[in-house]
Amino acid sequence: MILIGERINAGFKDIANAIRTKDPAAVQKWAVAQTEAGATYLDVNIGAASRDPADMAWLVEVVQKAVPTSISVDSTKIEAIEAGLDAIDGRGVLINSTTADPGKLERIVPLAVKYDATLLGLAMDERGSPQNVERRVENGAMVFMAAMEAGLEPDRIILDPILMPIKFMQEQAPFVLEAIEQYTNLSDPPPHISVGLSNIGSKTTERGRIVRTFLVMAMARGLDAAICNVCDEETIAAVATAELVLNKEIYSDSYIRAFLMRQGS
Amino acid sequence: MILIGERINAGFKDIANAIRTKDPAAVQKWAVAQTEAGATYLDVNIGAASRDPADMAWLVEVVQKAVPTSISVDSTKIEAIEAGLDAIDGRGVLINSTTADPGKLERIVPLAVKYDATLLGLAMDERGSPQNVERRVENGAMVFMAAMEAGLEPDRIILDPILMPIKFMQEQAPFVLEAIEQYTNLSDPPPHISVGLSNIGSKTTERGRIVRTFLVMAMARGLDAAICNVCDEETIAAVATAELVLNKEIYSDSYIRAFLMRQGS
Repeated sequence: MILIGERINAGFKDIANAIRTKDPAAVQKWAVAQTEAGATYLDVNIGAASRDPADMAWLVEVVQKAVPTSISVDSTKIEAIEAGLDAIDGRGVLINSTTADPGKLERIVPLAVKYDATLLGLAMDERGSPQNVERRVENGAMVFMAAMEAGLEPDRIILDPILMPIKFMQEQAPFVLEAIEQYTNLSDPPPHISVGLSNIGSKTTERGRIVRTFLVMAMARGLDAAICNVCDEETIAAVATAELVLNKEIYSDSYIRAFLMRQGS
Repeated sequence: MILIGERINAGFKDIANAIRTKDPAAVQKWAVAQTEAGATYLDVNIGAASRDPADMAWLVEVVQKAVPTSISVDSTKIEAIEAGLDAIDGRGVLINSTTADPGKLERIVPLAVKYDATLLGLAMDERGSPQNVERRVENGAMVFMAAMEAGLEPDRIILDPILMPIKFMQEQAPFVLEAIEQYTNLSDPPPHISVGLSNIGSKTTERGRIVRTFLVMAMARGLDAAICNVCDEETIAAVATAELVLNKEIYSDSYIRAFLMRQGS
């Protein structure tokens, strides 16, 4: 399972403060905590806290000093993505993200090639977020095709069908499950498939339960990646248990610990 | 979701004692508790505690005095099933179970017709338990066809792909998920699909977690029934949350309570 730690994001106050004051402490704390929790990638996002691409480079460098974990350079701005990629020290890197917007694909896919990066593509387009299965599949396929044509193997492509808050857009959740399954048919081996997991629980009273239930249901349909709160032990236990059910994790009485050790390695 | 309460089974000591001493207390206690917990059917099984079909009739009568809930008459012996069916007072009834063994189908399917019962068919045959997807699908289809030919609508047929302990037969779990999905393609509307849920957690240290994770993963593939410990509140919450994700339960902050009220009605 590809677990992308969501916590180094300027949407959180401690990270916004760290960027503003150039104090690395909070960033490095979360880099270590998420790495120990089993993160495959650490997502790094300057969000609305800064418009300066140099801040993305600073954030990447701070994380790299703390841990050897691969990095997910996360921005809607191409300049910030490029600054983050330029700062990468040779470790694994994920571009988060492109959409299916042709203008965006044209600029971001070559960056993935140039920097030897994995590419995460959101199933959005210039018209915005998808509201049904068909648009999710069309947009995902468009990203997949553009990436393949540029020479990226399926293993370097991650598609995201766009998960929405269940409290406000409940009808979208089964569409996301269906899109996931259809993505698995794009190629053999298929691309990776991820969601922004925390979205579904937004403003709900049973947040943890909803997030984890969706996660394992999506894994039953082919999800093999997620941007999420990797520091939540119940989430990690849910992933380990779903991998067990899918026969991807070998049973032992301490399979959760075994999963974590394998994940971290 | 069709929830079949597993607790009135002579595999449990208190029920075996109740049958032996003809003391209804324990049976009625579990009839009430499982009904309040949201059971659609109460499974009633004399197991190895008795070879006397009259004991099945006694057990059914005791349950009927306590609650109005539908009953699942559970036995491998046709005489016991028939005695249980004869004792039913007109409420809903499920025959648990037939297999795909032609000799068994020939005798049990007509009972479902005669007693206006729903029929649960295990994907086993005269060779024993299935070890792959294909046998599960073949056997399930054989039960389905025999039941349809006898005039049972898909809504009165429940197929069970045979869930096995993950600790000892881990490779079977993904086969069960795949068989569930294939069962959903048998007809439109499809038959119901159930598993003996507790089986998967047998002898594991993380029993509750494994059972509930499998349950919601299976629901993501089309499961809509389960024989299980309905008195486990975490199981009920997991079912309610999976129904929410599938957009079958409308979101409210108290959706778990709403599910339970709807389930009981």
